[in-house]
Amino acid sequence: MGINYGQIQKNASDVKILDCTVRDGGNVNKCRFSDDFVKAAYKACCLSGTDYMEIGHINSGKFLSREEYGKWMFCDEADLKSVVESVGEKKTKLSAMANIGKCDPENFPKKSESPLDMIRCAFYATDIKAALGIAKAAKEKGFETALCMMAVSTLDELAIDEALEYLAASDADVVYIMDSFGGLSFRETRLLVSKYKNALEGTGKKLGMHTHNNMQLALANSIEAITQGVDFVDATFAGFGKGAGNCPIELLEGFISSRMPRKFDIRPILKVIEEYVVPLKKELNWGFDYPYMLTGLNNEHPRKADEFIKTPDKKSITELFDDFNKKS
Amino acid sequence: MGINYGQIQKNASDVKILDCTVRDGGNVNKCRFSDDFVKAAYKACCLSGTDYMEIGHINSGKFLSREEYGKWMFCDEADLKSVVESVGEKKTKLSAMANIGKCDPENFPKKSESPLDMIRCAFYATDIKAALGIAKAAKEKGFETALCMMAVSTLDELAIDEALEYLAASDADVVYIMDSFGGLSFRETRLLVSKYKNALEGTGKKLGMHTHNNMQLALANSIEAITQGVDFVDATFAGFGKGAGNCPIELLEGFISSRMPRKFDIRPILKVIEEYVVPLKKELNWGFDYPYMLTGLNNEHPRKADEFIKTPDKKSITELFDDFNKKS
Repeated sequence: MGINYGQIQKNASDVKILDCTVRDGGNVNKCRFSDDFVKAAYKACCLSGTDYMEIGHINSGKFLSREEYGKWMFCDEADLKSVVESVGEKKTKLSAMANIGKCDPENFPKKSESPLDMIRCAFYATDIKAALGIAKAAKEKGFETALCMMAVSTLDELAIDEALEYLAASDADVVYIMDSFGGLSFRETRLLVSKYKNALEGTGKKLGMHTHNNMQLALANSIEAITQGVDFVDATFAGFGKGAGNCPIELLEGFISSRMPRKFDIRPILKVIEEYVVPLKKELNWGFDYPYMLTGLNNEHPRKADEFIKTPDKKSITELFDDFNKKS
Repeated sequence: MGINYGQIQKNASDVKILDCTVRDGGNVNKCRFSDDFVKAAYKACCLSGTDYMEIGHINSGKFLSREEYGKWMFCDEADLKSVVESVGEKKTKLSAMANIGKCDPENFPKKSESPLDMIRCAFYATDIKAALGIAKAAKEKGFETALCMMAVSTLDELAIDEALEYLAASDADVVYIMDSFGGLSFRETRLLVSKYKNALEGTGKKLGMHTHNNMQLALANSIEAITQGVDFVDATFAGFGKGAGNCPIELLEGFISSRMPRKFDIRPILKVIEEYVVPLKKELNWGFDYPYMLTGLNNEHPRKADEFIKTPDKKSITELFDDFNKKS
């Protein structure tokens, strides 16, 4: 019943959904997930029709402690294989994120010897040259590569334009718009997609969108990005990710399936959410909350919200509100 | 810092925000609020710059038990006066909702003798003639009036067009688009705003938007409606309202203040949320959750989700998902 709102969009049938639960959720618990959870999440990605799963970071034990961080901070080949083998058929491609100063690009595996398909590098604009080097190294090893310039909502137009010149000439297959602070409206998403697309025109590079939910706009920004023609969208199970969390994949895939020419099966994802993510949410802190709303509205890093939440005798939200207003 | 995303919108400076916490939240607890809470909420509305507060229903003790329901199901004059007097200056206008079969229009007070400014009538399309009668009665008593046709997402275009003919010829000052099931995308909101505006053109009637958060799109739909030129938008403290709840007023007013030529002070609202609404959320059930997401994605009344949540030995979410898929 109802108006037939069917939305025929030329891009929607090709859009790739990248689940980054273990990677962005790994920001909350230092990548310390049970093997059962990671295997269940990968299986659900395969069954749902999700295109990619970012299963962690490809960082190095030279720079990060293997005692402090779980195995998905490093994505060793044996661990990756164990997950793929547990499911059998590898329907969903695997991605890992390389972090500047924490990864060792010379020791990236070769694509031909690894279950990984894609290496993404997340970086702040000031580190763009190091990021270009990581993308080059990953490309030379045979991987699909993505460059993800974080916190774009804090950059002025000239800074974005300058970065886009580098990115257009880079080895990346995909360039991402990263709303790291959850600070974008969907009108702003529309403007940024247009700007990025113009800069990448003729390069053959794909465009991606990564959102956070500080203003409860993660799904809206993701839908708007698809409507405006991005090729990749990130999402996580139940929005599990840093701070206010990400675009919930079950909502995104459910929404797309209800209105666009692409179908996902969200049932396996709901099952994993119920079995694993809802219990995890009782011990870990993420998702929409007032401190994160205030960082989002003020277009700031969620750090201040994290600190506020962790303070034992914390101030009231109105005091945190006053802190923001003093600064601006 | 960041791109200057300032959004000059001719309508945004005139848009009226209507808080309906006590009315839509009253659906969750049968309007049984403490006097302190209602007074604090009204004060926060006045201080924040919120234009209207819907303080409950104007239903009759003839049809509803005064033992079963709290005083805000009836909005007696003495109770309204007590709230206004507690704040002193009445900066925010007051609204009450009349329900078909539960209100007694002949006994509506006269506007000149009541602290109320507006009477809104919510109705399903099949009850439109009764609703027109209520609007007429309210108008004759001197009130601003609004007609709110619920669950528009379930109506086909012909049904909406036919209803709009009645509404355009009605006594209502404001006609509302009601996304009662949280089933609209913002593209659909855009289409409906356009349809309603066309139908109301030349009548002098204003247009309003009321959203629910089943798909985490309540804020996005509200922003889109403002961008497309609606005159009234409903919202509630912390989204407090039936099922998945409404558009959170602190997010809506914070967002508008950060980007549009209208400023609100959300601090008093955050204070009331922290003092009253967060504790209420521990005893009452509302807000985004998977059962409500499933009713939203399936464009159904939240009844089935409410029943699921209340069942002591409830099924899993995947079983509820299967129930929906069997039906469709």
